[in-house]
Amino acid sequence: MTDQAIPLLPYERMAQLWRIVAEKRTLVHCMTNDVVQGITADLLLAAGASPAMVIDEHESADFSAIADALLINVGTLTEERSRSMIKAVQSAKANGKPWVLDPVAAGLLPWRDEKIAYFLSLQPTVIRANASEIMSLAGVGAGGHGVDSTDDSTNALEAAKMLAKRHQCIVAVTGKTDYATDGQKVLAATGDVPMATLAVGTGCSLSALVAAFCAVDDNTLEATVAALMVMKLAAQNAVAQSAGPGSFRVALLDALYSNLQFVRNAS
Amino acid sequence: MTDQAIPLLPYERMAQLWRIVAEKRTLVHCMTNDVVQGITADLLLAAGASPAMVIDEHESADFSAIADALLINVGTLTEERSRSMIKAVQSAKANGKPWVLDPVAAGLLPWRDEKIAYFLSLQPTVIRANASEIMSLAGVGAGGHGVDSTDDSTNALEAAKMLAKRHQCIVAVTGKTDYATDGQKVLAATGDVPMATLAVGTGCSLSALVAAFCAVDDNTLEATVAALMVMKLAAQNAVAQSAGPGSFRVALLDALYSNLQFVRNAS
Amino acid sequence: MTDQAIPLLPYERMAQLWRIVAEKRTLVHCMTNDVVQGITADLLLAAGASPAMVIDEHESADFSAIADALLINVGTLTEERSRSMIKAVQSAKANGKPWVLDPVAAGLLPWRDEKIAYFLSLQPTVIRANASEIMSLAGVGAGGHGVDSTDDSTNALEAAKMLAKRHQCIVAVTGKTDYATDGQKVLAATGDVPMATLAVGTGCSLSALVAAFCAVDDNTLEATVAALMVMKLAAQNAVAQSAGPGSFRVALLDALYSNLQFVRNAS
Repeated sequence: MTDQAIPLLPYERMAQLWRIVAEKRTLVHCMTNDVVQGITADLLLAAGASPAMVIDEHESADFSAIADALLINVGTLTEERSRSMIKAVQSAKANGKPWVLDPVAAGLLPWRDEKIAYFLSLQPTVIRANASEIMSLAGVGAGGHGVDSTDDSTNALEAAKMLAKRHQCIVAVTGKTDYATDGQKVLAATGDVPMATLAVGTGCSLSALVAAFCAVDDNTLEATVAALMVMKLAAQNAVAQSAGPGSFRVALLDALYSNLQFVRNAS
Repeated sequence: MTDQAIPLLPYERMAQLWRIVAEKRTLVHCMTNDVVQGITADLLLAAGASPAMVIDEHESADFSAIADALLINVGTLTEERSRSMIKAVQSAKANGKPWVLDPVAAGLLPWRDEKIAYFLSLQPTVIRANASEIMSLAGVGAGGHGVDSTDDSTNALEAAKMLAKRHQCIVAVTGKTDYATDGQKVLAATGDVPMATLAVGTGCSLSALVAAFCAVDDNTLEATVAALMVMKLAAQNAVAQSAGPGSFRVALLDALYSNLQFVRNAS
Repeated sequence: MTDQAIPLLPYERMAQLWRIVAEKRTLVHCMTNDVVQGITADLLLAAGASPAMVIDEHESADFSAIADALLINVGTLTEERSRSMIKAVQSAKANGKPWVLDPVAAGLLPWRDEKIAYFLSLQPTVIRANASEIMSLAGVGAGGHGVDSTDDSTNALEAAKMLAKRHQCIVAVTGKTDYATDGQKVLAATGDVPMATLAVGTGCSLSALVAAFCAVDDNTLEATVAALMVMKLAAQNAVAQSAGPGSFRVALLDALYSNLQFVRNAS
């Protein structure tokens, strides 16, 4: 029901933004966790963007000034990496580059929650997270099962709006249905693909894709939901050709690549 | 010959344990090497468990208290990671959670061997390693070819028993045939798949799966060999559909996923 | 045009070197970036070599003395990792082992460029890089688009020769056509596969393969171009069976594996 009540972005608007991302080969500075670095890079490349991972604190700020957008993902965070990320965020902000916060496992671990709170104070352009993480950040939930959500994205929608208002940013809460909100308006991307939760890094990579899209349009709400749609569509294409999570991962990259060709040719 | 002399676990016992792992979405705290983080997470997910990598020393102990089991893998070990792992192990023990030691490349490098010796003194629930590593730990061999074994698992069986008695733990030595022993009893998982040695991380991921299984049953010998069987069966299914190590890796995840559906439906 | 003017290595010479790499299971000590560790290991394994990642500064020198060759890749470099890499290089040199430098993103970031300059002063056996990186190192270009090249390999050939003379090493510049040069002679490996730029780590893994080949023959120019050929051929086989970058990555590993069987059987 909720799925149908929430407006979608027109397909052509998604296609328009995607074409720009691919034309510019939007360069995303990914400061992400150790588990998903490969899949994040592969997914950005398949979607026509350009990934680069630069992590030392002597060069993270320099690179965020060069890149088009920045991703901060707190999975496998360390004290040292955290210092370097803060410098990158400050540089991104000083240079007018959008940055996305992916608060992996928010609500479970005190040290991490302190770090996340500090990143929130630096005003991310977008927060992209699962339902349990969003509810925990909004103060209405208690964290998920490790890095996995125990809540439904629809149930987290009010928390997402609250969080967006509080931090004056876009909040994307992903799950069966994906939602993006600026605190007032909400847009949805539909099409549940349970298999996606069995391939590590789909959520983390999606945060990187959101960063890429936010680099090409000032309407960050629409840019965010465009990235969510791109992933939802590719996941639906992929699962139709998959015998399990191994072939799903392969087919997801192929589908992003094919869909981008289609979108380019349709322009 | 040896393969036939060593008893196997009944298939139904393996299935029973696997169903519990998947029902509980057993949460494994993986402190593993940088090379295999993605495949370890993917393999646990395909097998119905839930992986999470938490590495900083400010939160590793907190997370081991939450998780159902802990994996310590010393590949790409650093001084700093080692400190964090020790805290995680102490927390796992204090909270009655099983932990598995994967002593990658034991016997080759003095600094690492010191670290491994210290981890052994913390009494792992299970040691999972290849033949060269087990023989080196038992003091009857000189290490392998880098991270690869130069010995056969059957030749390492006596060393495995010795090691299990000495450390009062389960020892799993994997190779052409996999064995698990508590020092007295031995159980085997059969079915050689040479292709598995060409896909990095199958052994490391198997250690994570052993941790998941040990979280659901006090009979850690049977739980260990059940995990070994799950992997052997999936590897045999996968290789039949593979043109090489690339498609093998994909098919292995798909086979774990399919076999789990079968085991669930058969209950 | 240039492609046809530059001599190729005879296929049989490539096959001869590859057979030795596989027979010896040439052990490559990979000190590489966090993004490509898995694919680097998988690619070396598929090609018959043996990868091992050992990174802490307490053991990197010990392991370089044991391994047959060393790879230094400066992607995701940190201050600490850099110290450990220098020790490994010194050990490789002292023990007569070849080492390959992969100067990821050279020309973009001052701190990294200083590190790369220091590595260059340690006289690598081979430098393997894309056109933008080579031109930047030679002082005739300004770096690429993040980690991707904005120049064509053919345009970088003079820069590659200059660099090879200056550092008395082999320089491999890869792209549409791959070239290896000792500053005088040039050899090419042909067969453009644009899809390869969409699968992260193909270049980084190729540097590891170059290290493996240089361990088995004193003619490091021919050994380098043999590794480039092995990859070009597998990439061409793979792309013919790929629907996109996901299936390309899988097919690339399968093709390396199949081609190695063929080369072995043809001996």
